[in-house]
Amino acid sequence: MAGTRRNDPANPANQIQPVAANGLLDRRALLGTGVLFAGAAAAGVTGIASAAAEPLRNDPWSLTIGAPVPPYSMPSHFESKVVRTLGDATRPGTQQGRTPHQDLDGIITPNGVHFVVARAGAPDIDPDKHRLLIHGMVKQPLIFSLNDLMRYPMESHIRFLECGGNSAPMWSKTPIQASVQALHGLLSCSEWTGIRLSTLLDEAGVDPKATWIIAEGADGVTMNRSIPMAKAMDDAMLVFYQNGERIMPWNGYPMRLLLPGYEGNMNVKWLRRLKLTDAPVMAINESRQYTLLLESGKSWRFFYPEEVKSFITRPSPTMTMPAPGYYEISGVAYSGHGRISKVEVSADGGKSWGMAGLQGPVLPKALTRFRMPWNWTGQPVVLQSRATDEAGNVQPTRWQLIAERGEPRGTPPVAAFPMNHVNCICSWAIDAKGAVSHVYV
Amino acid sequence: MAGTRRNDPANPANQIQPVAANGLLDRRALLGTGVLFAGAAAAGVTGIASAAAEPLRNDPWSLTIGAPVPPYSMPSHFESKVVRTLGDATRPGTQQGRTPHQDLDGIITPNGVHFVVARAGAPDIDPDKHRLLIHGMVKQPLIFSLNDLMRYPMESHIRFLECGGNSAPMWSKTPIQASVQALHGLLSCSEWTGIRLSTLLDEAGVDPKATWIIAEGADGVTMNRSIPMAKAMDDAMLVFYQNGERIMPWNGYPMRLLLPGYEGNMNVKWLRRLKLTDAPVMAINESRQYTLLLESGKSWRFFYPEEVKSFITRPSPTMTMPAPGYYEISGVAYSGHGRISKVEVSADGGKSWGMAGLQGPVLPKALTRFRMPWNWTGQPVVLQSRATDEAGNVQPTRWQLIAERGEPRGTPPVAAFPMNHVNCICSWAIDAKGAVSHVYV
Repeated sequence: MAGTRRNDPANPANQIQPVAANGLLDRRALLGTGVLFAGAAAAGVTGIASAAAEPLRNDPWSLTIGAPVPPYSMPSHFESKVVRTLGDATRPGTQQGRTPHQDLDGIITPNGVHFVVARAGAPDIDPDKHRLLIHGMVKQPLIFSLNDLMRYPMESHIRFLECGGNSAPMWSKTPIQASVQALHGLLSCSEWTGIRLSTLLDEAGVDPKATWIIAEGADGVTMNRSIPMAKAMDDAMLVFYQNGERIMPWNGYPMRLLLPGYEGNMNVKWLRRLKLTDAPVMAINESRQYTLLLESGKSWRFFYPEEVKSFITRPSPTMTMPAPGYYEISGVAYSGHGRISKVEVSADGGKSWGMAGLQGPVLPKALTRFRMPWNWTGQPVVLQSRATDEAGNVQPTRWQLIAERGEPRGTPPVAAFPMNHVNCICSWAIDAKGAVSHVYV
Repeated sequence: MAGTRRNDPANPANQIQPVAANGLLDRRALLGTGVLFAGAAAAGVTGIASAAAEPLRNDPWSLTIGAPVPPYSMPSHFESKVVRTLGDATRPGTQQGRTPHQDLDGIITPNGVHFVVARAGAPDIDPDKHRLLIHGMVKQPLIFSLNDLMRYPMESHIRFLECGGNSAPMWSKTPIQASVQALHGLLSCSEWTGIRLSTLLDEAGVDPKATWIIAEGADGVTMNRSIPMAKAMDDAMLVFYQNGERIMPWNGYPMRLLLPGYEGNMNVKWLRRLKLTDAPVMAINESRQYTLLLESGKSWRFFYPEEVKSFITRPSPTMTMPAPGYYEISGVAYSGHGRISKVEVSADGGKSWGMAGLQGPVLPKALTRFRMPWNWTGQPVVLQSRATDEAGNVQPTRWQLIAERGEPRGTPPVAAFPMNHVNCICSWAIDAKGAVSHVYV
């Protein structure tokens, strides 16, 4: 593979300094100044491109007229595996669709593969007939059509959404050998556009004694959750657009609640009703589901924010490294408490750490893409990432989380992974043949 | 429609100050503090929501199980009109697909409706067989497979792309009565992820005498353009991912050139070759197309940046205002020279202006969403927006652009609008019945 390289070892700019064990390189190597590859041989990094010996081919697709432009396009058929993986479709109840993070890059999740958890499928809502009711402890109950709502002041924000049950497979007693999609796929990030909820609540006139809002969807199970008034008046939104277009049916068309940083289930889809009250409704999804059952038999309820977290998407389990040499380690980090302040990467299972580069702009409660230059010499390594948010929260190890919540327990398949809000550090082992697997270290 | 409102005219916070003629309001009214609607009656603004007299209905979609989660989803069938409009599909040559900006919000364009101009359709490229060749005035010609390229350092940036021929309908002698999609639809904005071009050029070793790069695509016409070396070494990128997923076939799968801020045609899709030279290739798209033919018979060639521009997407031509009262005027602004610094809005055809709110983060060479609160009393008005970029460029009026370039000329249909890089202010008239039309003022 390696051809001749521009290569001046005498130039200090061409010296790529390792910053941690097993080949992690200084993140300044990401700056694209050409230092890294021009100086590749000097630093012992194996080159990537081939010297161009063969003439340019006229491939068959260059010799014909291609496909005409469609009204609404889809990815290439060569990418047909980059789709949601689905839960058990034979069960009449909850359906899940997971985002293929191992095949994505950047921070935006395309709407076609945004994760979905739905209790009764996606209702086929006629937007002209749908209504939103705000009532209960208000001065004036109000009812809105979609056309009414379109006239209010809008805002757009890039924010992540994550199911409270995401990463539950990390609670398996033995590491599950599956892709990032299977382990962490109930997570996505979009540009959402809609109205601040406080605008509508102010118009209805909130009774000062109201402390909760019961949000209810128009799906077949009329899914509902209790929203603390403080969150509703802070950054909560009623959203209509996802990545520019109207929200797709499976993500809440024509409107959903968005509670930035809070567990996905509270972001009620197909929203039809907001009832202001002075007590939570004790819905199944807050009294039983989405609680954290501890070894003591007690459980944490009303635990909302998705805690600081990160995972490496490339390389990741089920992939194979083609050869030793330079690679970029890439992944996503996020926190329900605000911005990511740093992500560290280890190639020796957490003994030494190097600072990853963060792709700007780093936005609050949004995915942040991190990148780490790496020279893999072909030895076995264990890759980890560890995120810290601006509130100072640090992503815990799996053992720290177990110490807090108790050993994994329960009987497969129903209660195999009874833990929510799992945000521990993940470990990807790479063996001498380049095979990537999931390990606990 | 109007119900009882919380309404205290004695509270100064409830006084919404007009900032320009015909009902333009202070942009602080967008802050979502509830001031606007709580004080609506005080400011003479008609309310929007209805008092909730009717009970909540159980609509039919709430009484059944909905649609199961698909692997890759599409918008609701109720949004089936929110698609690209296509050029003349019977012509074997250039095909166009336009983005429906009148139905979008935020700044991200979904990949399914990103604009397309294609000379020979989308080639069906096998990514495993596709190669990129860098040759010509380099020390070492290099050839890359897609798997090679995936190992290089990546970056992600939200950037707009606009066809040099976008908004050509503004050069019609009489204002064309059509949607924003028909007038300005050859414009989109995405999060792009890929490699800095300079990284690869440095590795090949650029001959100091090389001043141009001829970029060539793998489509049926092997579309090519000459790229100035300075741009190639600045912010040019080789991109693979668009809004998280691999670029769709019509936008360059598996890779395209991205020259942020430069006319779309230079951002060569299906990129297969970069040849470094000391002269431009004088391709048809730089010697004939995408030139600005002046009245004198001379033309501007090699005029690359898309100049500062904005247009209002809501309300916009072909829409009808349902009733007098509060609305948000919303639109997009952008400049190939960097960030948008301000957008002003007029409701009296340019006599008086108010400052619009800009949705942050305001990114360089990206769409910026602007919003302006407005109380339409039902009188006829003419809406305009005027953008200024951080380099100090101000969007010109149509008459200023005509003074610079000469009167509209040419014979329909072929040369009806022979002008490229049209960035003038647009005027949307609203009559007493609420009908929105396109006018020249």
